[in-house]
Amino acid sequence: MTLKNITIVKIGGNVVDDPEALRRFAAGFAQMPGRRILVHGGGKEATRMSQALGLTTTMIDGRRVTDASTLDIVTMVYSGLVNKRIVALLQSLDCNAAGLCGADAGLVKATRRPPRDGVDFGFVGDLDPNGVDILTLSWLLESGITPVFSAIMSDGKGQLLNCNADSVASCLAKACARVAETHLVYCFEMPGVMRDIDDPKSVISSITPESYARLRAEGVVSKGMIPKIDGSIAAVEAGVRTVTIKHASDLLKPSGTIITL
Amino acid sequence: MTLKNITIVKIGGNVVDDPEALRRFAAGFAQMPGRRILVHGGGKEATRMSQALGLTTTMIDGRRVTDASTLDIVTMVYSGLVNKRIVALLQSLDCNAAGLCGADAGLVKATRRPPRDGVDFGFVGDLDPNGVDILTLSWLLESGITPVFSAIMSDGKGQLLNCNADSVASCLAKACARVAETHLVYCFEMPGVMRDIDDPKSVISSITPESYARLRAEGVVSKGMIPKIDGSIAAVEAGVRTVTIKHASDLLKPSGTIITL
Repeated sequence: MTLKNITIVKIGGNVVDDPEALRRFAAGFAQMPGRRILVHGGGKEATRMSQALGLTTTMIDGRRVTDASTLDIVTMVYSGLVNKRIVALLQSLDCNAAGLCGADAGLVKATRRPPRDGVDFGFVGDLDPNGVDILTLSWLLESGITPVFSAIMSDGKGQLLNCNADSVASCLAKACARVAETHLVYCFEMPGVMRDIDDPKSVISSITPESYARLRAEGVVSKGMIPKIDGSIAAVEAGVRTVTIKHASDLLKPSGTIITL
Repeated sequence: MTLKNITIVKIGGNVVDDPEALRRFAAGFAQMPGRRILVHGGGKEATRMSQALGLTTTMIDGRRVTDASTLDIVTMVYSGLVNKRIVALLQSLDCNAAGLCGADAGLVKATRRPPRDGVDFGFVGDLDPNGVDILTLSWLLESGITPVFSAIMSDGKGQLLNCNADSVASCLAKACARVAETHLVYCFEMPGVMRDIDDPKSVISSITPESYARLRAEGVVSKGMIPKIDGSIAAVEAGVRTVTIKHASDLLKPSGTIITL
């Protein structure tokens, strides 16, 4: 394996929805040195599209139920519109991007989430690093291609599945960590994990599993950040060297919160 | 170059729109020997989606004008929904498909059609075999990947463009013909070019540039087939070994109309 290191970068809906933010991010991403993978969320376009088509969105505990019509919409919007826009943009910046969903080249297999406690989230997929075809992914990276993943995966039996983009990024990072030094970067609209949500200067520069336990006990970490940091801790425990949470415009600057063992 | 031969297969909207026809076609395509590329049209889903969203479609001489909203719709439907459905289906049949648009890995560059005689078709692309990155395409094929192309291409400068799927297939075939023996197959809902449109047994088994001139003079070729045969003649004259026009369910059977020099 000739890959020295791989960086997986995830951008969320706020970046995807804002053409100017996306352009700034893309300019940074295109200039990043080394092998890299981009994972993007979907943004509000899918919700807008569902509303325009008169589809009702069913939410359970704040999570969208992916029925057949919703799966069609997210597949169209995430893997079609958003993915190809980003790819065309990156190509114009001399980054050799290729847009992919999990079904393409059988790269990522997901498992449909079974109903639990009578709750069926529909065509939603759960991920496992063993479901990543790391040989094919490494070969694409070594060949100078920059994969751009939507969060639409497949069960390998013909069924597309809607997955969480943070989980896709984390799963890809864990799989890559088996073959190369791997770094995971979550880009969003905040400068990092902050002690005071209203003070951009209160970014916590470094978190470890130990310091995270203290931060949680002190109630410093806001509720919305907990799943992201939990996932980041799990990623570094699974072999990912660093997870960085930072602002999408600061991709090339040393900034944000770095999570390590 | 180790590629012995390449087959480019194009399916139209009638196959894409009919789940049973698509399944039958995919079963045949997955079993085809050798390196192959699939190009698919979009079907009626884009029109349905435009109507559901209340967008008006502008047609000039029977051709759709691709304004910015229409480009979004066709990108979503063709490169998202239709493309990923086909890829997931082929993967379930052990065909290592990867869905692509022209922007992905910079594979196919198109040129936006300039307004002519005051008519502007909008974000519509014209194709040239020189716009195909044949090295990257050959490398994908040699690696056992089966590219599945929608007809959405890019100008390489960040702009997606809507192209004609027949033209995409023909352009890819001409480019492949420069590096390998190449065959092009147009699959549709008819058994081939017929002398009598109501008699499936009247399929013309073979057409050459000479016999085509006679058929046209005799008025045997129906108006709708003329652009397809014109394009096929141009493809064989550009080095494509054969162009076959046949029914999508008969992919593996020797059947249809074969166009050669």
